[in-house]
Amino acid sequence: MASMMFTDCSSSTTSRLFHLNRRNGTSLLRQCVGQLRFQTTASGRGCIRSSSSPISAISADTKSEGVATVIDGKAVAKKIRDEITVEVSRMKESIGVVPGLAVILVGDRKDSATYVRNKKKACDSVGIKSFEVCVAEDSSEEEVLRSVSGFNDDPSVHGILVQLPLPSHMDEQNILNAVSIEKDVDGFHPLNIGRLAMRGREPLFVPCTPKGCIELLHRYNIGIKGKRAVVIGRSNIVGMPAALLLQREDATVTIIHSRTKNPEEITREADIIISAVGQANMVRGSWIKPGAVIIDVGINPVEDSSAARGYRLVGDICYEEASKVASAITPVPGGVGPMTIAMLLSNTLKSAKRIHNFQ
Amino acid sequence: MASMMFTDCSSSTTSRLFHLNRRNGTSLLRQCVGQLRFQTTASGRGCIRSSSSPISAISADTKSEGVATVIDGKAVAKKIRDEITVEVSRMKESIGVVPGLAVILVGDRKDSATYVRNKKKACDSVGIKSFEVCVAEDSSEEEVLRSVSGFNDDPSVHGILVQLPLPSHMDEQNILNAVSIEKDVDGFHPLNIGRLAMRGREPLFVPCTPKGCIELLHRYNIGIKGKRAVVIGRSNIVGMPAALLLQREDATVTIIHSRTKNPEEITREADIIISAVGQANMVRGSWIKPGAVIIDVGINPVEDSSAARGYRLVGDICYEEASKVASAITPVPGGVGPMTIAMLLSNTLKSAKRIHNFQ
Repeated sequence: MASMMFTDCSSSTTSRLFHLNRRNGTSLLRQCVGQLRFQTTASGRGCIRSSSSPISAISADTKSEGVATVIDGKAVAKKIRDEITVEVSRMKESIGVVPGLAVILVGDRKDSATYVRNKKKACDSVGIKSFEVCVAEDSSEEEVLRSVSGFNDDPSVHGILVQLPLPSHMDEQNILNAVSIEKDVDGFHPLNIGRLAMRGREPLFVPCTPKGCIELLHRYNIGIKGKRAVVIGRSNIVGMPAALLLQREDATVTIIHSRTKNPEEITREADIIISAVGQANMVRGSWIKPGAVIIDVGINPVEDSSAARGYRLVGDICYEEASKVASAITPVPGGVGPMTIAMLLSNTLKSAKRIHNFQ
Repeated sequence: MASMMFTDCSSSTTSRLFHLNRRNGTSLLRQCVGQLRFQTTASGRGCIRSSSSPISAISADTKSEGVATVIDGKAVAKKIRDEITVEVSRMKESIGVVPGLAVILVGDRKDSATYVRNKKKACDSVGIKSFEVCVAEDSSEEEVLRSVSGFNDDPSVHGILVQLPLPSHMDEQNILNAVSIEKDVDGFHPLNIGRLAMRGREPLFVPCTPKGCIELLHRYNIGIKGKRAVVIGRSNIVGMPAALLLQREDATVTIIHSRTKNPEEITREADIIISAVGQANMVRGSWIKPGAVIIDVGINPVEDSSAARGYRLVGDICYEEASKVASAITPVPGGVGPMTIAMLLSNTLKSAKRIHNFQ
């Protein structure tokens, strides 16, 4: 793990961050996002995360000033898991089929093992059957491909995940491409991304994290059509598909990335901001148009000696400043994070329904 | 054919246009682009196309005011065809292989027949072998699929085009999907589009018209990296892939479409504008930042009683106004149009080289 340094909004926004693995429930996002390094010009007030006030309703009104509505991803994710539980149960009762998610774990990384355990727990909680294969670190690529192939052929498996990262002697792209597109619940296959980009085409699966971002907007009744949206970060896993999703819903989208010369100015034009950049507190209050809606995908650990673990998690957005300007904002943690696993479960259910032609 | 009405920059920008077929050399673009209808607010001076001044050099400097450099697509396309001729000849001499392009024409539409003839002529001019199958209008979808399959298996064919539109009793998507991805020189397969969208992936082919737009920028030494780019129109064939291409080259890209509320304001922020919207003279001088570079993909016929045919072709951009503000601009005709067939030939050569592993 890389070392960390404390980052608040008054300091440089360049922080060294943990190298977290993608595909866990909440902290997958650090590795997902692009390696952006912006030069920011904002200075001033410190950005110590204020504790988010408790909220109950999953429906926001758009406010133009004051304190932003907190978009409670934890609560929304719970609601979605409850809905999935009902559907899984209905499917089992109607046609005797239980959706199944298979995870292939290669090697003995502790963090990977934790993420796989979390996924299993999430599956259990909604009644989705989980399958797991552990392959030794020094196995051959062929062995992993055999596992993929086995799950491709297994009718009780409807979704397949290969836990990343893989050992360096394996070709990640080769292995991921081997996953049957009908079971690629991650939605990262180029064919899926192509369909996502094209009007009149439908992807089989939408990648979980960007799908979670849009779902939050939907659940909070935040209109997308005709809105100016800015996505910060252009990773294959979050930024790019998030932009495609926003565009599918008729937003006017700009993607900001490390080569963008005036990110602050462009971001300030946005009605909706999705940030997936992995830089603690990068987006300051001055970047935000009053009344904008903010979805913060970044999960960045920064040093905090007062915290039990010596660090705490913050987003890409300087929450304290942003929550005074925005109309709605996701907290970190408890915003987008919990949505990712919920969307993975949702994609697995969707896959099982499609394979068994169950409405 | 729909009727037309004369449109200049002083009148309403909503014009009724010819329904031209895509995939011909110069006038394919009308059908390619989205069906946008913008409300424009600009008024004032008439926009009668001034004749473009003759240019010779294929290298532009960026000017911030005065008369824009004319980006001469005809000259660039000729240069590219010359380069292709050399390569085709080198390939033939080295390994005895001649690149081949097959076109499948269904029915007896006169315009389609003309486009196919033009493609054949273009192939002949560079030494690419052309193949053609004509299938009767009342044939079954299976018959067309058999032709596609025949060309898929034919080692002397390296690129396959199905001339659109197809008769209404045929499933266009079905037929296009049947074209082998290795020979899909149009580059419209979702797998190609997905790879185009993803960082670290390479499409087998880049769609011809957007590829032609970017090639024009390259040939005129117009920098893309870090530039603010606006693409007007989000069609699968031009706008969307053009935006993906610009982003691959590190521009900061915004796509404007029919739901965009303030297209003029956003366009005015752009260093590079690619318009593929099919609305005569829609983009006025007031939309353009001084010094911007303009690639006009629109080819719109407007009534002109002084012209022999009773109409003339204009772009999406009000050329007269724009050429006074922009630093460089493509004329219509003679801008992007000639590039499309050049890129088709280029893709066919690329395909032959890849299939035969020829550098």
